[in-house]
Amino acid sequence: MNKSRAVAVVGTFDSKGEEHLFLKNRIEGSGLRVLTVNVGTKEPIPFEVSYDLYSLMKKNGNLDDGNRDKAIQDMIREGIKLIKQLCRDGKIHGMISAGGGSGTHLCSSIMRALPLGIPKVMVSTVASKDMKHTVGTKDITMIHSVVDLLGVNSISGIILDKAAAAICGMTRSQWQPDTEKRRIALSFFGFITKSAEAVKRELERMDYEVIPFHANGTGGMAMEELASEGYFHGILDLATHELADALMDGYCSGIGPGRLEPAPGKEIPRLVTPGGLDCAVLEFTRRHIPEEYRDRKVFFYDFRSAIR
Amino acid sequence: MNKSRAVAVVGTFDSKGEEHLFLKNRIEGSGLRVLTVNVGTKEPIPFEVSYDLYSLMKKNGNLDDGNRDKAIQDMIREGIKLIKQLCRDGKIHGMISAGGGSGTHLCSSIMRALPLGIPKVMVSTVASKDMKHTVGTKDITMIHSVVDLLGVNSISGIILDKAAAAICGMTRSQWQPDTEKRRIALSFFGFITKSAEAVKRELERMDYEVIPFHANGTGGMAMEELASEGYFHGILDLATHELADALMDGYCSGIGPGRLEPAPGKEIPRLVTPGGLDCAVLEFTRRHIPEEYRDRKVFFYDFRSAIR
Repeated sequence: MNKSRAVAVVGTFDSKGEEHLFLKNRIEGSGLRVLTVNVGTKEPIPFEVSYDLYSLMKKNGNLDDGNRDKAIQDMIREGIKLIKQLCRDGKIHGMISAGGGSGTHLCSSIMRALPLGIPKVMVSTVASKDMKHTVGTKDITMIHSVVDLLGVNSISGIILDKAAAAICGMTRSQWQPDTEKRRIALSFFGFITKSAEAVKRELERMDYEVIPFHANGTGGMAMEELASEGYFHGILDLATHELADALMDGYCSGIGPGRLEPAPGKEIPRLVTPGGLDCAVLEFTRRHIPEEYRDRKVFFYDFRSAIR
Repeated sequence: MNKSRAVAVVGTFDSKGEEHLFLKNRIEGSGLRVLTVNVGTKEPIPFEVSYDLYSLMKKNGNLDDGNRDKAIQDMIREGIKLIKQLCRDGKIHGMISAGGGSGTHLCSSIMRALPLGIPKVMVSTVASKDMKHTVGTKDITMIHSVVDLLGVNSISGIILDKAAAAICGMTRSQWQPDTEKRRIALSFFGFITKSAEAVKRELERMDYEVIPFHANGTGGMAMEELASEGYFHGILDLATHELADALMDGYCSGIGPGRLEPAPGKEIPRLVTPGGLDCAVLEFTRRHIPEEYRDRKVFFYDFRSAIR
């Protein structure tokens, strides 16, 4: 067994102690090490954990004013600080958590601070809701708990067991790309598929690796974030309709202020072309064209349409 | 290596052949067997797969009328039929797929037909969108691809490798509950936490296992579906505000016509109490109380509030 790799089991041990201890036992049973982190904000816990952020914050005079939102915000900040440090020091190689609505918000916010490729597994009662702010632009694995997380029973036990098995598999597996090619990020979208494919082929012929991003708001921002982490040697920003969508509150809006800005502190060549900039993607179908768009050129897709 | 367990790699091999073959190779490399299933609807594929539903449907005169929605619907139906049969025959013990918007819709629709506890992993470009119709009431594991799925590169390769490792771990792990207690499903919600907890303790004292469901629409329907699959010896339906929410288009609406109906073909005792039936959960905060609710009794939570 490879005892050198470790998983952080991070959770609100005050309300979900049993579930997180079950995860710990299943992961250790599979031969990996575990570090436990309590991020509960409500009360002291009767368990031994590796890092008890509740006690630490209490000692420092936090969590005392009864403001739940602030307590959770403060805990997220402390959790991120700790988990990034553990990751940088090579003390953890994956993170898992289980929670309801608040626990999912708290722990996925901490997960999002970990770099791409570090396995992140969130078991959640709300995994079939809107994941825009939970998963966002990150490689988070979401597992729906189906039942409520109130102890380990014959259904939640199966789900938590599979989740533990998933993080163990992911933490052990270490595929590496076998090329050391220079990487170019390329924004892609349906409007410009043909030209984007031609550009991709041509760059590959010139021996670059092309990393395509689906410019649907999330995709464009994921490209910017990975650029700022130094993943790319160049950016070819070919699909720019996210700007039009931001203006029209379209399907591909949701970009942040960093979209199309230089990555701070890096010098990454970027070529921006106005591909699709004259289009916006809206959520109407062939059967329900809003009055104001009837004289536009409309492209129909599925539940989405694009106007020019 | 345990060669007796197998994973179904199901996908649109016409547009995402390289990605699915990569998954196949990684899973086989980890020692499990793979069955490949092509559910592409657009064109013949140049790969050898275990089951090519495209060829099969073409031979039977389907997929020919150019109606994409119908082609996808027909393929989902055929895919469900095949995958359920493979599962029943013990030929597969898990399923994995990777896709964009359409592929995610197609393959997650097939996944949802598999029983709880059979591992289901979906790598998706749209995993940070609304998962209501993708995950629904099921134990689907969603992995956000971050980059667009257009071949295996140094980023998509990492994501797909982790997904393969996850399904391998999950397919191998077979935790079983160590009790043979009789199981009672219990609907739970914030309004009635104290009484629900008291009821749970009392039932456990009487040696029943209690499976709690968060009655937020999804939870209530998951309880009904598992009841119809024979998971429970009894149901105590304590949180019934999903009915009020269905009337008020609230946060916990989204229940189907089977909610609170007897499980067809089963005789499961069910006790229904009107817990929380006088409340509805709505998405407004303390700062934005809609005019029409200002004279109601309002409970504030987070981004949700409840009115009585």
